[in-house]
Amino acid sequence: MKRIYLDYAATCPVDKRVLKEMLPFFSEKYGNTGSLHSFGQEAKIALEKARERIADLIFAQTEEIIFTSSATESNNLILKGLLKKNDHLIISCIEHPCIKETAKFLKTKGVLVTELKIDKQGFVKDLEKSIKKNTALISIIHASNEIGVVQDIEKISKVAKRNKILFHTDAAQSFGKIPINVKNIDFLTASSHKIYGPKGAALLYIKKGLKINPLLHGGGQEQGLRSSTVNIPAIVGFGKAAEIAKKEIQEDYKKQIKLRNKIITQALKIKACYLNGDQNKRLANNINLRFSNIEGEALTMKLDLEGIAVSTGSACASTKLEPSYVLLALGLKPQEAHGSLRISLGKYTREQEIDYFLKILSQSVKELRKLSPFK
Amino acid sequence: MKRIYLDYAATCPVDKRVLKEMLPFFSEKYGNTGSLHSFGQEAKIALEKARERIADLIFAQTEEIIFTSSATESNNLILKGLLKKNDHLIISCIEHPCIKETAKFLKTKGVLVTELKIDKQGFVKDLEKSIKKNTALISIIHASNEIGVVQDIEKISKVAKRNKILFHTDAAQSFGKIPINVKNIDFLTASSHKIYGPKGAALLYIKKGLKINPLLHGGGQEQGLRSSTVNIPAIVGFGKAAEIAKKEIQEDYKKQIKLRNKIITQALKIKACYLNGDQNKRLANNINLRFSNIEGEALTMKLDLEGIAVSTGSACASTKLEPSYVLLALGLKPQEAHGSLRISLGKYTREQEIDYFLKILSQSVKELRKLSPFK
Repeated sequence: MKRIYLDYAATCPVDKRVLKEMLPFFSEKYGNTGSLHSFGQEAKIALEKARERIADLIFAQTEEIIFTSSATESNNLILKGLLKKNDHLIISCIEHPCIKETAKFLKTKGVLVTELKIDKQGFVKDLEKSIKKNTALISIIHASNEIGVVQDIEKISKVAKRNKILFHTDAAQSFGKIPINVKNIDFLTASSHKIYGPKGAALLYIKKGLKINPLLHGGGQEQGLRSSTVNIPAIVGFGKAAEIAKKEIQEDYKKQIKLRNKIITQALKIKACYLNGDQNKRLANNINLRFSNIEGEALTMKLDLEGIAVSTGSACASTKLEPSYVLLALGLKPQEAHGSLRISLGKYTREQEIDYFLKILSQSVKELRKLSPFK
Repeated sequence: MKRIYLDYAATCPVDKRVLKEMLPFFSEKYGNTGSLHSFGQEAKIALEKARERIADLIFAQTEEIIFTSSATESNNLILKGLLKKNDHLIISCIEHPCIKETAKFLKTKGVLVTELKIDKQGFVKDLEKSIKKNTALISIIHASNEIGVVQDIEKISKVAKRNKILFHTDAAQSFGKIPINVKNIDFLTASSHKIYGPKGAALLYIKKGLKINPLLHGGGQEQGLRSSTVNIPAIVGFGKAAEIAKKEIQEDYKKQIKLRNKIITQALKIKACYLNGDQNKRLANNINLRFSNIEGEALTMKLDLEGIAVSTGSACASTKLEPSYVLLALGLKPQEAHGSLRISLGKYTREQEIDYFLKILSQSVKELRKLSPFK
């Protein structure tokens, strides 16, 4: 059975052009960037080339890009590396668990945390009134990994600037998918595997002149901010993925918007099916649907049996039984949250896959409702 | 020019069999282990297979293996995850920078640190007399990344056990190269790229029943100890590399011992050339030589021009100007430490490469001495 992957928000296949660029760095150009000899030097050159390609995508300077192993690590690094006891941190209630859990940890270290609520469309509210004298950082997710809603980070960054507060955004879902310029952003997190690069590479953008403490101590790589042997093949892949994204971002966006809107239009024709999150200000690849009297997990399983991979929420949370905190924050009741489904598209998604998915979705919802005790 | 790589202690090429095993996980079986659908499930199965292969190599149980991104991360995780204010930590003075710098950081958090000295052969001393009532952890490097000396961790672990102190060893250089059984070890660090696996994967062994705190907060992967999207291709490669190591460890060891001893015997015939560290209780792949009236860096550069890649010390420290703290700890004077060279062999090293290296080494030493102002 040909499988249909509609869970690109969880992770993506590596673009073949990316893999091709990575391959020589496994068994031929395998040097350690710390070594003085020719093997080390060719690794160092590859590292800096990747850094240039990535900086280029977000209009950053190369020395502002710190490579890490994952967006989780970047998010931990910025929060733990910047904040100290009695600092006030503002995040939103729909951050990824790696921001929420890190903030929770920092609370135990005396950091004060405010979680901004969201409105019914999914946009953060009450930012200005949450600012205190000791607010040291505002960290707001750019695009939600669950509902795909894109926050107005331009506006948020201006509020931060006006109040002389540093601003971080977790752009793991938006980087390479919608244009980003870091001009008014102090710190930004992005990840390779969400843009068809390999797992194991990510970045933290740190605006020139700003200082944070490292999370990993050791050999002093990445300006002393991320000690570890540098993962050259993964970073080379990340660089290539960023280069490709820069070229193809517009075309991919247009194509996905069309498919996304088709899904939304068709799905909303299914009885008691609703869209979670704003219909327009959302990622081109994200659809989050809600079905009355359906368990999202049962629907996911049923679709999986038909060869279609979708998700009930974030991959990190999919093995947990609690309803999604993002959906609850939208104002949904627990059973409504449990009846939700995330469909996320990618550049390899074809229209005929969407047509097949819509057909199976409609059938599956009907069948599950027949079995439902809520009916 | 055919290049000769003699810096395997810094990093290794990926074994072709390892790369072959990894390849499907980039663009075909690319699922996120957290996903419930078939893509996620095949990733999860691959993850657990890798864990089994690795556990098997050191006689551990699978649930005792936590995957991280690097040995540096594993070492940071165990020290920062275990130790709290007023705890006493014993390390040696020849630990890798990722242990030394982490210990230095922990000192600022109120952890007390004792650095054991080494004798002229490179073995740690005074362990028993350094133990205090509040000693919480002994962390001793198994095999030195610079001088290759292998510590008697069996003996050290018994001292720890007798005194009811936990014992960690950084086995980044020895794992997969000399047999290790974790029976008497509480925590162990090992890395993929030192055993012909890819960069970006490493492990922390944690004996069943022992608890530490995470370094990265987030989605709760790896039993909550290492949140992040799991880097499946790298971990699959690490698993395959461990499986190969298990099969070929004895054969590789024998072959390398022979080449190592040939280098030592021949090099010591060069005027004023000495071996750093014990001649016998050292890794089969490590030779660390000292030449009077020679700058190790100049020698490294000269050899590099002849296509031979060696190192003055650890890759992490090779861009720094200070003499190696490991060599100083052996009792060497700064100029002696500066005159040292690390040659590290691998399973792809052939005898004719060694013959060529020995010829060029001898010539280069003579030529550099002609130019030396110390002469």
